[in-house]
Amino acid sequence: MPRYELEYPKDATNLVKRDGDRGVYSLRRIHELVNASHFLHVSLNIPGLPFPACLPMIGQMGSFERPSADLGDPLDLYIHGYATSRLFRTGREGGTEGVPVCVSTTHLDGLVLSLSAFNSSYNYRSVVLFGHATIVEDPEEKLFALELITNSVVPGRWKQSRQPPTNAELQSTGVLRVRIASGSLKYRTGGVEDDKHDLENEDELNSIWTGVVPVHQVFGDALPSSYNRLETPAYISEYTRELTTGNETYAQTNAKEI
Amino acid sequence: MPRYELEYPKDATNLVKRDGDRGVYSLRRIHELVNASHFLHVSLNIPGLPFPACLPMIGQMGSFERPSADLGDPLDLYIHGYATSRLFRTGREGGTEGVPVCVSTTHLDGLVLSLSAFNSSYNYRSVVLFGHATIVEDPEEKLFALELITNSVVPGRWKQSRQPPTNAELQSTGVLRVRIASGSLKYRTGGVEDDKHDLENEDELNSIWTGVVPVHQVFGDALPSSYNRLETPAYISEYTRELTTGNETYAQTNAKEI
Repeated sequence: MPRYELEYPKDATNLVKRDGDRGVYSLRRIHELVNASHFLHVSLNIPGLPFPACLPMIGQMGSFERPSADLGDPLDLYIHGYATSRLFRTGREGGTEGVPVCVSTTHLDGLVLSLSAFNSSYNYRSVVLFGHATIVEDPEEKLFALELITNSVVPGRWKQSRQPPTNAELQSTGVLRVRIASGSLKYRTGGVEDDKHDLENEDELNSIWTGVVPVHQVFGDALPSSYNRLETPAYISEYTRELTTGNETYAQTNAKEI
Repeated sequence: MPRYELEYPKDATNLVKRDGDRGVYSLRRIHELVNASHFLHVSLNIPGLPFPACLPMIGQMGSFERPSADLGDPLDLYIHGYATSRLFRTGREGGTEGVPVCVSTTHLDGLVLSLSAFNSSYNYRSVVLFGHATIVEDPEEKLFALELITNSVVPGRWKQSRQPPTNAELQSTGVLRVRIASGSLKYRTGGVEDDKHDLENEDELNSIWTGVVPVHQVFGDALPSSYNRLETPAYISEYTRELTTGNETYAQTNAKEI
């Protein structure tokens, strides 16, 4: 274990102002949540478009320079997509400095139903990352990123699928590397909260149900394709079962009052 | 039923170019998915910030001018949050024209594991909306939006929680109205797909598992607070059960090959 956990420095960009005690700057916790996200929302300004764009993409944190780096280390975000899409065209025009982007992801963990609508809330975890995106040109780095992203669907899937990728596949797939400038995580856990004047109101207490509905994502039994010839391998069935159990445990545990 | 379904006009902003047959422009389907989303990712440019911002927010589509409008009609998006946050400060500076925003949401429905990594994918549904955000100043419209948003957590919850909101609650809560300029939905459903050269490769077929892992969100049993005095009401337990069943049915049905 390292002596201390690295944090993204707090500044005007990433500071969690409202409910500041729910803000987290730990690289490890931020990177963990990003890598546990199947979709990331990537926002950027596209030349000629009168609105910012916010596009769902698939990505993972990693380090090509130091593949053994762990989630608590400084990492880059790799995003993949179709090489001819607007995101990648814009990335190509960003030069060496890169295109300023914001990447965010949110997980819902519970519905928090208080006496007042105002104190009602969600249990959730969200990350916002800021950085500069450039196109990955180095073929080695591109393969590193594609393996990283494929293994985020099911760990080990890259080696378990047909290798190597064809030239046509590599040409039509683009990879962006986002150098992270700043980031933060915000969350809510726990039970309901209410104001004193509501908690002292007998009519409210006698008529309004209060509590938390925990919410979690379930990965169901794998459904084989019509041309599949194999039993479901353990690396798939065990992973999806563990993911589901972990999600349920998290939502249940964190729905409780402290 | 209306004679035809309204669609957002296709233009350079919202056109789904890649896999264009997966693009949907129907107001009804787009608004339904937004209203089924617990979080929306709202991106905008904040003066002085060197990156676009992409923030998780809670919002719903509705029409204050015509509250009886249905999901297939032109609607506004209402977003609520803390009145002093950056989003709302920026909204206040946007004047009558409003601040250009992009709002997106994505639902994961399955992991699609093909012979090649390249053809692997997710089953998903995503919406991207573009529009202009202004602060809602009219107290009636603000209440309309807060009721709409509270009822999106559990239908009917607004009337089942303490009413009316206090002045302090109303002052610290901001509401943004986004006039929608354009939008689209993109999705993937169905089983795995692979290229001919992979499907004809016996080694691949004999060694690689292919299929879909359906994914859905579960709303668990409601956990009462320490000060709750009521049995879980049917409007909560039935709603969360139906939501869970609907999610599971959707993921399972759409994981199948067509």
